[in-house]
Parts: sequence; C-alpha cells; structure tokens
Amino acid sequence: MAIKLALELSRFGVRDMNMFFGRWMSDLGSLGEEQVIQRLASFAGAHGNLLTGIGDDCAVCRAAGSTTDQVFTSDATVEGIHFLEDTAPVRIGHKAVGRVLSDVASMGADPEWFLVNVVAPSTLDMQVLEGVYAGMRERLDLLGGVLIGGDLTEGERLSLHLFGTGRVPLDAALLRSGVQEGDLIWSTGALGGSGLGKHLDFMPRVREGKWLRETGWIHAMTDVSDGLFTDLSHLLGEQSLGACLSGEVLGKMSTVEAALFDGEDFELLFTTAEGVGDQLEALYNDVFEEPLWRLGTIRDGSGGIEVEYADETKRMVSRGVRHHF
Amino acid sequence: MAIKLALELSRFGVRDMNMFFGRWMSDLGSLGEEQVIQRLASFAGAHGNLLTGIGDDCAVCRAAGSTTDQVFTSDATVEGIHFLEDTAPVRIGHKAVGRVLSDVASMGADPEWFLVNVVAPSTLDMQVLEGVYAGMRERLDLLGGVLIGGDLTEGERLSLHLFGTGRVPLDAALLRSGVQEGDLIWSTGALGGSGLGKHLDFMPRVREGKWLRETGWIHAMTDVSDGLFTDLSHLLGEQSLGACLSGEVLGKMSTVEAALFDGEDFELLFTTAEGVGDQLEALYNDVFEEPLWRLGTIRDGSGGIEVEYADETKRMVSRGVRHHF
Repeated sequence: MAIKLALELSRFGVRDMNMFFGRWMSDLGSLGEEQVIQRLASFAGAHGNLLTGIGDDCAVCRAAGSTTDQVFTSDATVEGIHFLEDTAPVRIGHKAVGRVLSDVASMGADPEWFLVNVVAPSTLDMQVLEGVYAGMRERLDLLGGVLIGGDLTEGERLSLHLFGTGRVPLDAALLRSGVQEGDLIWSTGALGGSGLGKHLDFMPRVREGKWLRETGWIHAMTDVSDGLFTDLSHLLGEQSLGACLSGEVLGKMSTVEAALFDGEDFELLFTTAEGVGDQLEALYNDVFEEPLWRLGTIRDGSGGIEVEYADETKRMVSRGVRHHF
Repeated sequence: MAIKLALELSRFGVRDMNMFFGRWMSDLGSLGEEQVIQRLASFAGAHGNLLTGIGDDCAVCRAAGSTTDQVFTSDATVEGIHFLEDTAPVRIGHKAVGRVLSDVASMGADPEWFLVNVVAPSTLDMQVLEGVYAGMRERLDLLGGVLIGGDLTEGERLSLHLFGTGRVPLDAALLRSGVQEGDLIWSTGALGGSGLGKHLDFMPRVREGKWLRETGWIHAMTDVSDGLFTDLSHLLGEQSLGACLSGEVLGKMSTVEAALFDGEDFELLFTTAEGVGDQLEALYNDVFEEPLWRLGTIRDGSGGIEVEYADETKRMVSRGVRHHF
C-alpha cells in the first residue's frame, strides 16, 4: 500500500555514528527525519502576531485589529508515497486536500483559502488532473474552503502541494498543548487499517472539530496522521505525561497494533476532563452519525503509553515517524 | 542555464490535432500549458471575501471586519528547472522565497506569513538544506516575512514549494488590470540577461512596490517573471490595448531580444498616467539607489506590442510561456 509516510529514514544508532564520522554522515537519510526537521525549525521566525508556530497541526496568527485568528498549514501528497499510479484521480484529490482540511479541523477552525502547487509529467492525461481537481473541489465545496491559486510545474511524479488557511474566534484555536492528568482520551472514529482505503476516502472532521471547540470542553486536540501512538505522544510531549489506553477498545477498532501504528486515519484525537465525559458523549452522538470512541486516560509520565488488557498492562514502544515540521 | 520556465510545452497546431484525435491527444504536453491552466482554473471557487482570484500575481482576500486586505501566492522552485545541482544553496533559498516575495511586492503589499514544502533526496547533505533555509531566512528578515511552517517529503529532486501572504490597506492592492491608453510603462530595473546570475540573486522589490502603491499613481502592476513581452501582455490583455516600447531603452538594458523574452528579471512592471511621469521619476530616484526605467507608452490595441527604433517600428510576436495559474 502507498500509505507509508514520507521520508521514512533510518533513525537508530545514528547519533553515535555521527559523532565518529562528523560531517560525512550528515546526509538527510543518516540524520533521520526528526533531526532534520528540528534543525530546519530553527530557521522559523518569531513575530508578535504569531501565536503558535511550528510544532502544532497549524500555525496560529492574528492580524492587527482582527476579530478572529487565522490558522495556516501545508501538506504534500506524492505519487508512490501517498497514492499509487493507478489510484483513481478523484481519490487523490480527496486525500491531497483532505490532509490539509484535517489539520484545519484539528484546530477547531473553519476552512478558508486554499492554494495548490501541482507537479505533473507532461505525459499525464488531462482527465487525470481534472479528476484530481474535481476531488479537491468536492471536499472544499462540502466543508467550506475556496481554491484561489497555485502553480504548475513539470516533473516526474504527480505531486500536490496543498496550502490552506482557516478561521477561529480569537484565542479559541485548539492546540496540542493543554492535556491534564486524569483527562479522558477520545477519537472521532475507529483507528487502524486505513491502508484498505480510508487513507484516500476519509472525510475530514471539520464539522466535528468546530463542534468540539464550541463545547469549550476540549483541553488539547490533534489529528491522527502518523498513528495514534505518535500523535498521542505529541499531545503528551510537552507535559511529560503518560497515557493508559484500553486494549478492549483498540481491539474493537481493528487490532491494537493497527490502531496504534498504522496512521493516516485522519480522525481527531483529543482530551477532556473526566467529569464531562458522559455529557459530551451523549451530546456528540446526538449530532453526529459516527459515535465518539473513548480510548483511555491521561496518567503521569512514569508509564509512557500503556495498553491495558483484562489481565495485564503493556508498555508500548515507538514505531512511528513524524513527517511534519 | 536553468532559468527556462516550468512546463514549456509545445503550443502550436495543437487545437486542430485535438479535434482529430479527441481524448488520445489530451496529455498535458499536447494540450500546452496555457490550456491546462485555463481548464484547471475552472475548478477555482468564488466567495464574497475573494476580491481578486486566479489571474493576478496574488489572490486578494478580505476577512470580515478586517482593516486590511490579505494577498496569497505560491511558487515552485525545482532543481533542473529553476536552478542546477551545483547552484550554491543560499542562492537557491534566495530564489525560492524571492519569487513569492516578488509576487507580494507586485501587489504593493507587505510580506507576512510563509510556509515551505520541501522535497529532497535522502542523500542530500543537511548542510545544503540548511544553506537553502539560511538564504530564505535572510531575505525574509530583510523584507519582513516570517517562516511559520511547512512539510518535508523524500523525492528525487530538491524542490521548494513556497506559500506566502502579504498585507495591504483595504482596496489598495495593485492589480494587473487598470492600464489606460496613453499610460507610461515603467520598470524598477534593467531587464534581460538574468540567466547570468540575477535569476538567483535578485532582491525582491518589496520596498519599491509599497512605495509605489503609496504614491497613488500606479494604474496597474505586475512583476517580470515570464519576460517583458509576456508580462506586459498580461497588463494589456483584458483591456485589448497595445504598447510601444523604446528600442533605445531596451537596448541599453541588455539587448532588445533579451529584455523582451529572457524573463526571471523579478523587476516590477507598472504604468502611470503620462502627466505624473517626471515627478514620479524625481521622487523615486531620490529614495532608491537604482533609477526607474521608462520603457514606453500604452497605445490602442491595433499594433500589439511594438518596438520603436530611430528609423523603424517593429511589431513583436510572442515567444514566452505562462507558468502561473
């Protein structure tokens, strides 16, 4: 399947080798994606109007005098990495714009303006490209974004670089930070097995994200692109917290392994206080067709991410990769 | 030189062949870039807050209640098309972000937020990528934009997909439309021969664009990316106007041919009423080191784009390509 995430680079034992070989080992593959992204992030700027920069699903910015905040994100969708040569064009379009819409959704924002840089071989059939655009347009029309520009370049592999913005009320964007010990962990849909088709056909959770923001109950939110384990780690990261997930619930979604590590589910992953859980579930399931999943609980950081079964608790170890910066 | 513009596709005699062969001839190369872009543009959306969409250097958008307008643009800078494998990294960075800054400048806007999607081979040296980012950051620090995000994907050729926004006062963005018969035609620098180095090292005319907007004298503005002939055609296009250019002036810049067709000059190209010409020139040349160039005059459309020499006037024929949509 073409759902493996971008730039899967070897990441083990690399730091030590670099200490021996110095700059000879400094190609991107040897460094590993995480380190590359960290080093590139140091080139990002700061500004009084930039409320949240690199490290969340979107950057959050404020214009002087504005009554709303604006969120910004971009994603690449590339043949051979995110889809195959024979993938139906409309599904390529759904995924290309859907990845960005999912980032916007994870801030609780309304989609706004979209641009697309296309790279395509000159031998590509125009009907393929039009099918891709039809797929993008379909999702935008449904969820509220508008395509306003872009760029076209000739290249070997069909690639779609999508850039999108969204709007939220002032200070209302849902961030990755804000998780608290004792929080309940939720997702808007089943995780795992997206390679069977969902990685192309998912419907970005824009309405759900906005609805959840409006409850005022969400402590932190992200979307599941790199897999539950990795994306939950992003939520835990800054607070040095841990999590205990229900093996029974994950097993109902697909398998525990698949739910934790497959990725490209594009469901919203968020936490709330324990006390609002029942009320949230009842209200949400009244509005939306697919019910919420209650995945587990935030703990102190001593146990990392654990999965609890009827008779044992297992500590899980990372196998995911990060592809954003 | 690697300055030929993206997707240079054969464009002659294609329409007739398509009528014969129907969909068998519908690959991008046979259709030609202009037709591909036209067909893709039909997928762009409309919205009450979208003041200017596809067809200008940037889209112009307004947020409810905002006291400024926001401009949006994107450009791709790709190895083998826009730079060579042995181009110094910092110059690649200058060009990648400079193309977008030049679009922002051509609206008379202040640069604001920037995101970059990078495609890079895993064998690329990290120092090369850091050099590219240092080049981008240098220009942004000087001209006022802030890098706030992006995405990293593995791929064969180093490619930089830049997205940028800018700010202008309400209704103040300088558009391609607005040219009037009798207008003077100006550029902020010499045109032609950019392949010798300027296509990488140019300084985007952000300050000049803003200063020019503030005079209130500019009827229409764009930047010279595809070459004077093509970019001037964009200004003339909607009004069905023509232009008479001075062969003497173009000859002083480089050669008439090079000034008209080389492209990638990234100078601002604009028109004003004839009456303000001397005053504009005096004021501008007082503020900026490089003097303005007065290229010619807008005429009615009957003569197309002509070049006037001491003893003859020649009508010029297109050789450029459009790479934006």
